[in-house]
Amino acid sequence: MSTLKRKSNSICVTLGELAEKTQSELSGDGGIKISGAAPVDKAQTGDITFIANPRYLVHLPKTKASAVILDKDTPCQHLAVLRHSNPYLTFARVIDILYPDSQLVPQGIDSSTIVDESAEVAPAAAIGPLCHIKDGATVGKGSQLLSSVYVGKDASVGENCLIYPGVYIMDGCKVGNNVIIHSSTVIGSDGFGFAESPEGLKKIKQVGWVEIGDDVEIGSNCSVDRGTMGPTVIGRGTKIDNLVQIAHNVEIGNNSIIVSQVGISGSTRLGNGVILAGQVGIIGHLDIGDGVRVGAQSGVAKSIPAGKTVLGSPAHDIKDSLRIEAALSRLPELLKRVKKLESKKPD
Amino acid sequence: MSTLKRKSNSICVTLGELAEKTQSELSGDGGIKISGAAPVDKAQTGDITFIANPRYLVHLPKTKASAVILDKDTPCQHLAVLRHSNPYLTFARVIDILYPDSQLVPQGIDSSTIVDESAEVAPAAAIGPLCHIKDGATVGKGSQLLSSVYVGKDASVGENCLIYPGVYIMDGCKVGNNVIIHSSTVIGSDGFGFAESPEGLKKIKQVGWVEIGDDVEIGSNCSVDRGTMGPTVIGRGTKIDNLVQIAHNVEIGNNSIIVSQVGISGSTRLGNGVILAGQVGIIGHLDIGDGVRVGAQSGVAKSIPAGKTVLGSPAHDIKDSLRIEAALSRLPELLKRVKKLESKKPD
Amino acid sequence: MSTLKRKSNSICVTLGELAEKTQSELSGDGGIKISGAAPVDKAQTGDITFIANPRYLVHLPKTKASAVILDKDTPCQHLAVLRHSNPYLTFARVIDILYPDSQLVPQGIDSSTIVDESAEVAPAAAIGPLCHIKDGATVGKGSQLLSSVYVGKDASVGENCLIYPGVYIMDGCKVGNNVIIHSSTVIGSDGFGFAESPEGLKKIKQVGWVEIGDDVEIGSNCSVDRGTMGPTVIGRGTKIDNLVQIAHNVEIGNNSIIVSQVGISGSTRLGNGVILAGQVGIIGHLDIGDGVRVGAQSGVAKSIPAGKTVLGSPAHDIKDSLRIEAALSRLPELLKRVKKLESKKPD
Repeated sequence: MSTLKRKSNSICVTLGELAEKTQSELSGDGGIKISGAAPVDKAQTGDITFIANPRYLVHLPKTKASAVILDKDTPCQHLAVLRHSNPYLTFARVIDILYPDSQLVPQGIDSSTIVDESAEVAPAAAIGPLCHIKDGATVGKGSQLLSSVYVGKDASVGENCLIYPGVYIMDGCKVGNNVIIHSSTVIGSDGFGFAESPEGLKKIKQVGWVEIGDDVEIGSNCSVDRGTMGPTVIGRGTKIDNLVQIAHNVEIGNNSIIVSQVGISGSTRLGNGVILAGQVGIIGHLDIGDGVRVGAQSGVAKSIPAGKTVLGSPAHDIKDSLRIEAALSRLPELLKRVKKLESKKPD
Repeated sequence: MSTLKRKSNSICVTLGELAEKTQSELSGDGGIKISGAAPVDKAQTGDITFIANPRYLVHLPKTKASAVILDKDTPCQHLAVLRHSNPYLTFARVIDILYPDSQLVPQGIDSSTIVDESAEVAPAAAIGPLCHIKDGATVGKGSQLLSSVYVGKDASVGENCLIYPGVYIMDGCKVGNNVIIHSSTVIGSDGFGFAESPEGLKKIKQVGWVEIGDDVEIGSNCSVDRGTMGPTVIGRGTKIDNLVQIAHNVEIGNNSIIVSQVGISGSTRLGNGVILAGQVGIIGHLDIGDGVRVGAQSGVAKSIPAGKTVLGSPAHDIKDSLRIEAALSRLPELLKRVKKLESKKPD
Repeated sequence: MSTLKRKSNSICVTLGELAEKTQSELSGDGGIKISGAAPVDKAQTGDITFIANPRYLVHLPKTKASAVILDKDTPCQHLAVLRHSNPYLTFARVIDILYPDSQLVPQGIDSSTIVDESAEVAPAAAIGPLCHIKDGATVGKGSQLLSSVYVGKDASVGENCLIYPGVYIMDGCKVGNNVIIHSSTVIGSDGFGFAESPEGLKKIKQVGWVEIGDDVEIGSNCSVDRGTMGPTVIGRGTKIDNLVQIAHNVEIGNNSIIVSQVGISGSTRLGNGVILAGQVGIIGHLDIGDGVRVGAQSGVAKSIPAGKTVLGSPAHDIKDSLRIEAALSRLPELLKRVKKLESKKPD
């Protein structure tokens, strides 16, 4: 039942076509019909599967898939194979072929949506029901706003964006082209800034905005705060997972990867190609260089030069961190050993 | 004022009736009228209270409650008591009696809600204002969608569900019966998968779905991603707190408890009766056995066999973790002791 | 382009006026026209900037700003200066002058909003489109509900509040005056309470509510759970960042600061002026005294007396924590030193 529903969204192609379109090497019958993709341990006849992570190789001998995508070397006799030096990328391309994009909302503006007088929605945009697009806002051609999307005053959404239900793009924020934003994410909530005053905490009015580059994807339930002054920036091609906090005036470079539940504090700058694993926290006003990698749950309190990998809370160079961690397991025993040494002292 | 408002939602019963209906042992006047429940230190005349956590016993002598629910042994002379071996469960049952469920939305479909042509809403379902139910979606009888709920294409909501305002159930996702989902939670946002390509990070199209079993409850602001292929699964009776991240193709067994701000990475499987405390992170592709317990803020990087309790980041067996933690406090002193040993060496 | 848009929301005043209105000391030409505020490294002619954090002093010599706000002592010859003992507060006041508040929604109730019969909305409130205000709810004068806001049964919003799109204020919850709540935040989702029963996990019906004091600000994507019985309380003037979890029956005092991604477990009480840095977790049923400060990512498992600063997971007094952290870096080396001592032993 589940399977049927899923497959109804896919199309049917031959393995030969897939090989040709993905420029991969076919071994086996190119006439095999493929009508879906599935994990190696759940695939059925007609499915293609893939193995990029060796821990799933154990399932290969018994898979019911009709074909598998592998790298150049992994042996496989019993099954038709598409081989490519980058099987994960090939898999991504196969999925694109099997499950072509569909228009999720009809072009035009749903009658239940409210578009303020001076907002500009491109004729070739598609705005679903119950959205609210305010004065001065713009939505570019090819963009789809699925349902209950808010585009604030003077905010802009570029071309070919996909904005899921319940996304809030606040006043003055700028979203580039080909951007995907998932549900319940907020672009441009106020930065968290207060000055102590005789009357209590005085709000620093947040008069900046957010700029999101082309080809960015942001997951669900994220908060991207506007700059206090000037922009908070997410660079081109950067991908952000769910439940991530990006504070005011953070600047993230291009093609960086921010995994779920990360928090980046105010005015910190990340370079290009940075990878932050899940639940990482970074304090404010730091510089994180190009290509830096930060391990899961790490706490970063100092700037990190380009190319380094760090781990731990507080974060250390990963080698030091692993060495400390290994030593830690031996700490209770070490206490005993030192006690023993001390007891032998009085000789 | 607060109290009045609260009480207006409760009904009035005698302590004797409560004893009978909860099969607990009454000591004191069964004719006492109970019209509300309140914490032991805030209760007023007419309230019943309970003590399940011994740290609240200190308030018992001075409580103004008219009755208290206790275990079999705790002494209490000055107050009417309902005794039961499981006072917390008895309290849960008493609350159910005092505050009976009410229909939160009238049956039928509010006129401001948009139901696409081929969606099927049971006549005995109740759909509040400003919802959007897309083509092919189904909502079962007895289910209530309070307000601004999105049910995507071919998604399904079973019977007797309670879906709070601002929940987004994305295309193709399946919600069982008697499921409760709190506001701003997203079921079926895309999994976070990208392949490196010459043109930058290439999105792995996420063509799977989410399956939520019967009797599941999910808190507010959670993100449950759809499978890359196939389902992300939340098993029957499992309870999930707020702000939790469940990544693509995670499978959670039955009757597990996932506390607030936990993150579970892709393809990890949890057994039945697992308890993850707050802010735990688990990396991908692991197996967490039945009955495993993970302490707050732990970071799990290895599979855990059934029945174990772990703690720490990275997580160790809880005994080892507590031993390491205790030793850590002595580490600065240990450094001095070793230095002293070394200085005495040259004899 | 960005700059133009931003500046269109600001007004133009002279530096002399700013000095007078903020009671700061002017050095330089009071006739300089200021029409915007910008970070020191991005400011242009016509902008005023400020330096409160010494690490930005490096940009001062080359800033293009027309004026800068400084403390009493920082030397600055080449630029007009406003001096004040609290430059950050002065900056906050300057921003208020340059970017005056505007009415974000017209007074009255948008025609697409649904107001139930017995709800009471003050004539001088402003309710934007697609909101839902339920029976018995009240909204006070001067409050603005921007768009898609839900105010549940018998819930109340006080005067002069600013409620951003997609905020859900659930049944019976009470919001004070001058409160700001950002998008996608949920006030009054159910607390997470279940009793073990022969039939599985039995929900403890959550019949309490949430009380939010005057002058509170709550960020985006926060979850504030209702009390199990009685209220969850957020005290006057307290500021909460994004993605924060406040569990059932938590009580937070006045003027506290809760940074992003913090989680506070059930029934824990915080005093006044508490500061919790990002990603802190606190277990349930604790007392955190007035003025306590907790460092980022700390895990608090014990009550903390007033005035203390703690750090670490588990949290220790900050001095101990820093001492342990410093010692930890030396642990791998310590292991070697002890081994050396042991090998020399047999003399």
